Formats: sequence, C-alpha cells, structure tokens
Amino acid sequence: MTTTTETRIEADPAVPVIRVVREFDAPPERVFRAFADPDVLVQWLGPETTSVRVDRWDAVNGGGYRFTMLRGAEELVTFWGAFHEVRSPDRMVRTQSMEGMGDGAVLNTLTFEALPDGRTRLTDATLIESFEGRDMILASGMDEGVIAGYKKLDELLADG
Amino acid sequence: MTTTTETRIEADPAVPVIRVVREFDAPPERVFRAFADPDVLVQWLGPETTSVRVDRWDAVNGGGYRFTMLRGAEELVTFWGAFHEVRSPDRMVRTQSMEGMGDGAVLNTLTFEALPDGRTRLTDATLIESFEGRDMILASGMDEGVIAGYKKLDELLADG
Repeated sequence: MTTTTETRIEADPAVPVIRVVREFDAPPERVFRAFADPDVLVQWLGPETTSVRVDRWDAVNGGGYRFTMLRGAEELVTFWGAFHEVRSPDRMVRTQSMEGMGDGAVLNTLTFEALPDGRTRLTDATLIESFEGRDMILASGMDEGVIAGYKKLDELLADG
Repeated sequence: MTTTTETRIEADPAVPVIRVVREFDAPPERVFRAFADPDVLVQWLGPETTSVRVDRWDAVNGGGYRFTMLRGAEELVTFWGAFHEVRSPDRMVRTQSMEGMGDGAVLNTLTFEALPDGRTRLTDATLIESFEGRDMILASGMDEGVIAGYKKLDELLADG
C-alpha cells in the first residue's frame, strides 16, 4: 500500500480558487468528524505554535461559527462564517471571513472521498471574489499552517 | 432629478460573477429591509405569476433560510442557504443552492449604497464556482424574474 500524505496546494488558472488536496489514513466518517466536531478540530487545526479557541460552533445547514487562533494568551486572528451545508461523511460548504480584515468573504467547499483501504481524499476548494484576493491569501503563509495542521491530524487519526 | 430604474445585469469578464445593479427611490434602510424581512420579501420577489412561501428565515450572521417559489399550489423551485453577514443598512452576504439541482452553491453579496435625494443603489454580486455554472444561470431566464421583482419592489417602496 502506498501512503501519500503530501499536501497539494493549487491555484486554479481559470477561476479564483485555491484547491488543497490531501489524503488521510482513515475513512471519510472520521476525517469529516475532525472538521465538524469542535472538540476534535481544536486538537489539530493550525501551526504547531498556536492553539484554537472556539467561540461559536453550530455545524448544521444554516448555522454559524467563530474561532480564534491563539499563541499563548495572544489572539492572532479570528475567523467566522456560516455553514451552508454539513453533510456527513462527504461534504461541507461554509463561508469564511477574517475579523477586522474588511468585508471579504470566501466560499469554502470540503469534499471527503472514500479511497481503497479505508483511506480518504480531502479536497478543500476555496472560492475568492478576485484573483488579487487569492494572491493575498496565497502570499500569507497559509500553506505552512495547513501542512502543519494536517500532520497533527495524521497523528490524531492514527491514535484513533 | 433623474430617476433610473433600469436593471443592469453584467457578466464579469475576469471572474465567474453575475452583477446586477439597480437603483431604488428609497433610502438604504428601507431597501435593505425589503431583502431581510420575509414579510416584505414575499410581497415582491420573483416574476408576476409566482408567489413565495418562506420555509425558514433566520436573517442573522450564521443563520439559515429556505423559500419556495410557487405558481398557484405548484412548487416551482426551492432555494436555500446560509446568511454569512446581515448588516443593516449596507450589506448582506449569503450562500444559495437550488434544491434537487446537485451540489452547486453560490456566494451572493448585496451592497446597499446611499445616493443623493434619499435613493439607493443596490449591487447584487453572485460568485459562482465556474464560468460554465454562470452561463447556465444566465441562460435560465433569471433576468426576467429579477426585473419583474424589482418593478414590484418599486411599487411597494412608493406605497411606503
């Protein structure tokens, strides 16, 4: 069995979309839960040096959320948005904004695809209002946080 | 005073966005309410020959909605989604899907801009996941429903 845990981050040439593709050694139900259950989410989301405080979490169709990334007691950034669709085990669609960063909002679609041997391919597609906005997100160092977070999630899934 | 009630529907050349621009002879607070208050919304939304049944309506940040267009007792189409941001009088951001039409979701941003003489310019920008998806929406006859609905909204606003 070949285990791929490379994180692919692609900028779509045609539309202002960032697509992150990552495989996990766990079935879709468990990977989905890692995104939907805030008690699991806080255990892996973001870079090594940060923690997550969930301020609101209502993971249902037409529910809202808000969470804050912390370094120690310092608040680094707050993300908030609405859940458009929460459909275990294969699909989650939500909006997202960064507090204090103006009026931009993105549409984020997570697809959890079952692979052989009980594995999952996650595709995380973020649709942004402009190519300029996408360039800003790509230049922000988001890739490091994404890659580090998914590595923590690997370990969490391995622990059961 | 020049009163423009032309509805402009534009396809952005760079990104898969449909932008509808329309002015109203009422201040932003009143036009905003026509989109946020379901009791007002049902009085104007859609073509002349249809009515609207609101199935869910929670117009707050991180709330959800669902409504059905009817012709007589016949259900024509159901739209549903989440409110990302509801910020009277100038901004509303929401997602939208059509029930039974697959997994597509769009991000819709309404901006209500105050003009001189107590008027409002509404910009309704819908961001779609692909240019193909946008072409399908533009070819669906959505323009007729939009133009007819805004004409009813003109009358409603004139009536106070």
